Amino acid sequence: MSDSNDAVLLARDARGVVTLTMNRPANFNALSEEMLAALQDALDRVAADESARVVVLAAHGKAFSPGHNLKEMVEQPTAAYYRKLFAQCSRMMLSIVRLPVPVIARVHGIATAAGCQLVAQCDLAVAAEEARFAVSGIAYGLFCSTPSVPLLRNVPAKAAMEMLLTGEFISAREARERGLVNRVVPADALDAEIGTLVDSILDKPRVAVAMGKELFYRQREMGLEAAYQLAGETMAQNMMDPCAQEGFRAFTEKRKPAWKP
Amino acid sequence: MSDSNDAVLLARDARGVVTLTMNRPANFNALSEEMLAALQDALDRVAADESARVVVLAAHGKAFSPGHNLKEMVEQPTAAYYRKLFAQCSRMMLSIVRLPVPVIARVHGIATAAGCQLVAQCDLAVAAEEARFAVSGIAYGLFCSTPSVPLLRNVPAKAAMEMLLTGEFISAREARERGLVNRVVPADALDAEIGTLVDSILDKPRVAVAMGKELFYRQREMGLEAAYQLAGETMAQNMMDPCAQEGFRAFTEKRKPAWKP
Amino acid sequence: MSDSNDAVLLARDARGVVTLTMNRPANFNALSEEMLAALQDALDRVAADESARVVVLAAHGKAFSPGHNLKEMVEQPTAAYYRKLFAQCSRMMLSIVRLPVPVIARVHGIATAAGCQLVAQCDLAVAAEEARFAVSGIAYGLFCSTPSVPLLRNVPAKAAMEMLLTGEFISAREARERGLVNRVVPADALDAEIGTLVDSILDKPRVAVAMGKELFYRQREMGLEAAYQLAGETMAQNMMDPCAQEGFRAFTEKRKPAWKP
Repeated sequence: MSDSNDAVLLARDARGVVTLTMNRPANFNALSEEMLAALQDALDRVAADESARVVVLAAHGKAFSPGHNLKEMVEQPTAAYYRKLFAQCSRMMLSIVRLPVPVIARVHGIATAAGCQLVAQCDLAVAAEEARFAVSGIAYGLFCSTPSVPLLRNVPAKAAMEMLLTGEFISAREARERGLVNRVVPADALDAEIGTLVDSILDKPRVAVAMGKELFYRQREMGLEAAYQLAGETMAQNMMDPCAQEGFRAFTEKRKPAWKP
Repeated sequence: MSDSNDAVLLARDARGVVTLTMNRPANFNALSEEMLAALQDALDRVAADESARVVVLAAHGKAFSPGHNLKEMVEQPTAAYYRKLFAQCSRMMLSIVRLPVPVIARVHGIATAAGCQLVAQCDLAVAAEEARFAVSGIAYGLFCSTPSVPLLRNVPAKAAMEMLLTGEFISAREARERGLVNRVVPADALDAEIGTLVDSILDKPRVAVAMGKELFYRQREMGLEAAYQLAGETMAQNMMDPCAQEGFRAFTEKRKPAWKP
Repeated sequence: MSDSNDAVLLARDARGVVTLTMNRPANFNALSEEMLAALQDALDRVAADESARVVVLAAHGKAFSPGHNLKEMVEQPTAAYYRKLFAQCSRMMLSIVRLPVPVIARVHGIATAAGCQLVAQCDLAVAAEEARFAVSGIAYGLFCSTPSVPLLRNVPAKAAMEMLLTGEFISAREARERGLVNRVVPADALDAEIGTLVDSILDKPRVAVAMGKELFYRQREMGLEAAYQLAGETMAQNMMDPCAQEGFRAFTEKRKPAWKP
């Protein structure tokens, strides 16, 4: 159990569902050094927890996250500090990709700058209807360069460029149309909607999900032929897993798989 | 003419329209070893047929295809067998990309797992309104890794990941919104709709279509500058083709091109 | 000031807004050698103008542009000529990407072949409701290979392939749905709509926009980890710019940034 003063609350249920809740509502869960370190620590703990199955990334208070803590950045105006800060942030974002379990963003309120990047970098995202998204650093003179990395890998190029140049908000509905989030529901249905995704993932074998998630992001960076080669090898290994063997037998015998996913 | 017991029926009309019809309705046209070999053989024959112009990939019975034959896979539980099977399947998929003529998927019923991959890998796809799509291997413990290769090159990342993790069906309408198919029409209008695409392609010179299709997939894997270089060279060669010369003259003389496309 | 007989009219206001207007309405602003040279010259002048802030690319007459001048291409039927012509065109297109300021296409009438490519290659695009788009070279025997380069980087693969194989028009609304343009408005609202984008960009510091635009296109061609590394370095440099320092201080002091953007 996490201390209720922690920057990130980590809750884990018996099924392996880990909920990470950003817990600095007073500053809208800015990605301060403290928050980045707490997220990194939490993700590292999930990576080491072999019975974790899925992560829900949520936030306390009125907002998901407004991105970096601008006060901290004003106080230490050196290139060395900024390099360290963005490296820390990028490392945390890459940890989401490298995690063997899916990460679902649970978005309400605003998600801006690195907060919007966090949504884009998650594997899946569900947003409340009133949620709004922007990559707004440019309004303060800082182009959202690191947020552009996952944004451009989720959203069509011209839509991404418009968001980055204008810094303007888009609605949850627009975010869904453009590919930034998977589903949009009324705020009071957010947990239920995420619950259906979580339940669906829990039904699947952990090994297959882990192999598949890793392959998904690796093959994306490859040419078509190399991608097929790696994907075929991954599937052959996946098939040798006892869960897949049981799943396929169950299918041919028209029964439910008797596996511990 | 194909024997009506063949796994794939190959019909070719005088205009060069080749219709490949998967013909194992009893098992919903599963991509068994026999079916994969028959598709490979048919694609190889089209590749060698210099007057073939376009391929329509269709299916007999209630479904397009449910993907691999799970019974076969249960009966030979060795990594060596699975490697061979996925290599055979990937080779067939890549043959679609390498074919000098466009391949249009004609989808009705369900297209799941490698059946959905087949739709994604075709150049174009038209679906009946009631068609449904899923990459459902994960429900049996096998993440659809090879299907993820063309899926992620057609569908936005988060939508692709959701399909791969949940294994759930999407409707034909959703498939169109996400980029998996080009057009959706009532089942009884499927042939007419594909007919308009086929007629449009038949009007175009074979050489230009072949050059363009190859360039399209090659430049996609390149950086912007290299892509422009290859595309410019391709267009220069394309312009030297007698059809392009005639087409351009016809345009400047305000008449229809007098070519044998 | 440009001579009103120039192929491209260059107008520049005191704020640094450069409007380039293609000025050959008699041939619908075909991308003739003259027009390509004039666009290149104009883009080179903008690149050298350190107080330019944004480019609007517009057209006189009934159409945006129908692409290459087919008459010129008929008159010089050698591979050497075509290579030179496509290299000239690709160089101009790449100059748009390399320009340190955003380029917004202002589209009315038709934008076809290399004219459609021009829209795709701009950073942003706003279209009049009645505007129509096609990559129609294939109708004259020439697959739009160079247009396919930015098209495939803006529009989903199957939609791009359909346009390239059929050569058929899509509406402005369809262009927006597919990602080819950002916004669609009635023709008489075109300037006002572009004005809001221009004003938004003018509010932002030039240095941040230039760094961000360059990073956007460079990171796109990289793997995820390398993209994050370059983006982090870019942001650290961006933060050291006096505008970003002022912007961040202004934010923490709850006032508007006092910068000369």
